[in-house]
Amino acid sequence: MYSVFMSTPERLIESTRELLWERGYVGTSPKAIQQHAGAGQGSMYHHFAGKPDLALAAIRRTAEEMRATADAVLGGDGSAYARIESYLLRERDVLKGCPVGRLTMDPDVIASDELRAPVTETLDWLRDRIAGIVEEGRSQGEFTDALVPQDIASTVVATVQGGYVLARSSGSPAAFDTAVRGLLALLAAARTPPARS
Amino acid sequence: MYSVFMSTPERLIESTRELLWERGYVGTSPKAIQQHAGAGQGSMYHHFAGKPDLALAAIRRTAEEMRATADAVLGGDGSAYARIESYLLRERDVLKGCPVGRLTMDPDVIASDELRAPVTETLDWLRDRIAGIVEEGRSQGEFTDALVPQDIASTVVATVQGGYVLARSSGSPAAFDTAVRGLLALLAAARTPPARS
Repeated sequence: MYSVFMSTPERLIESTRELLWERGYVGTSPKAIQQHAGAGQGSMYHHFAGKPDLALAAIRRTAEEMRATADAVLGGDGSAYARIESYLLRERDVLKGCPVGRLTMDPDVIASDELRAPVTETLDWLRDRIAGIVEEGRSQGEFTDALVPQDIASTVVATVQGGYVLARSSGSPAAFDTAVRGLLALLAAARTPPARS
Repeated sequence: MYSVFMSTPERLIESTRELLWERGYVGTSPKAIQQHAGAGQGSMYHHFAGKPDLALAAIRRTAEEMRATADAVLGGDGSAYARIESYLLRERDVLKGCPVGRLTMDPDVIASDELRAPVTETLDWLRDRIAGIVEEGRSQGEFTDALVPQDIASTVVATVQGGYVLARSSGSPAAFDTAVRGLLALLAAARTPPARS
């Protein structure tokens, strides 16, 4: 499944990332990881103390990637609205859900301070990053003062996370797009005063 | 755990509902259900064909309950904004997540047309119900015409579903409330024209 040039620990981490995204932590057995990675049991326990240790390495890497991708889009040019729009419209594997956010529904991840930490840090970082952009837009008169940056940032992140739920429920990415369109329309309404009726 | 006056099938369904909410479908074994319900293996298979059959009964009941609760709030008095606000602010067991929405992250539920159906129907119904209220608010001049009812309804449902993700990630219901407050501020901005700066 992986290049023969990839080391065994690498194959184990990459396999764990894929299985966590697809089946969650509870649904991923050490045996499934070994089979996916083409590694023996002895080899896995030589490199990692166990499933939690391996999962932590996998979650950390996934979290770093998500952060880098989001930062690239959010750090682009344009108005606050345009940057949030770019973030919301960036290409996503919608039907697979968020590889970080979905872990919050995993009872064993939430029960472990260690496994939950990279999830919490990444979503907190994302929220703060977007809140900074809303604050910028507000101070430059782009958004109305009625918007509280941390609140709006939470709504943006929640819409994306909930958009995955709608898409997976309906089996179509369209439901994700609909939720994003609605949010953009609301953000646009908070940006320029609508015509009085 | 349950009253002795509750029948065995009832105890099995209620146990399955609780376990599905807490551990998901993949993480819920027939044995765990039997232990939780205080029922033997023979008794379980006497009443239900197996885990999928029992899960279907449990999911249907949870979906019906969620629908009834949402309908009671959304069908109340007041403006379109006020009814959506009541829905968003209704009391929730935020840290447990949505018993229906969380199933979308369960690969075995999504892979089964039968198990997914009540999830899809409930979320679709909720979206349509809220879209009807937005449409009403729009036709009565409460919301700006720029709002597309289905889009806004999807954003409302997504914010709630994603709000659970944020709450579980941070271990605090506050993150859910923040996302809801942001959405309400945006809806308010789309309702009354903000003062021109």
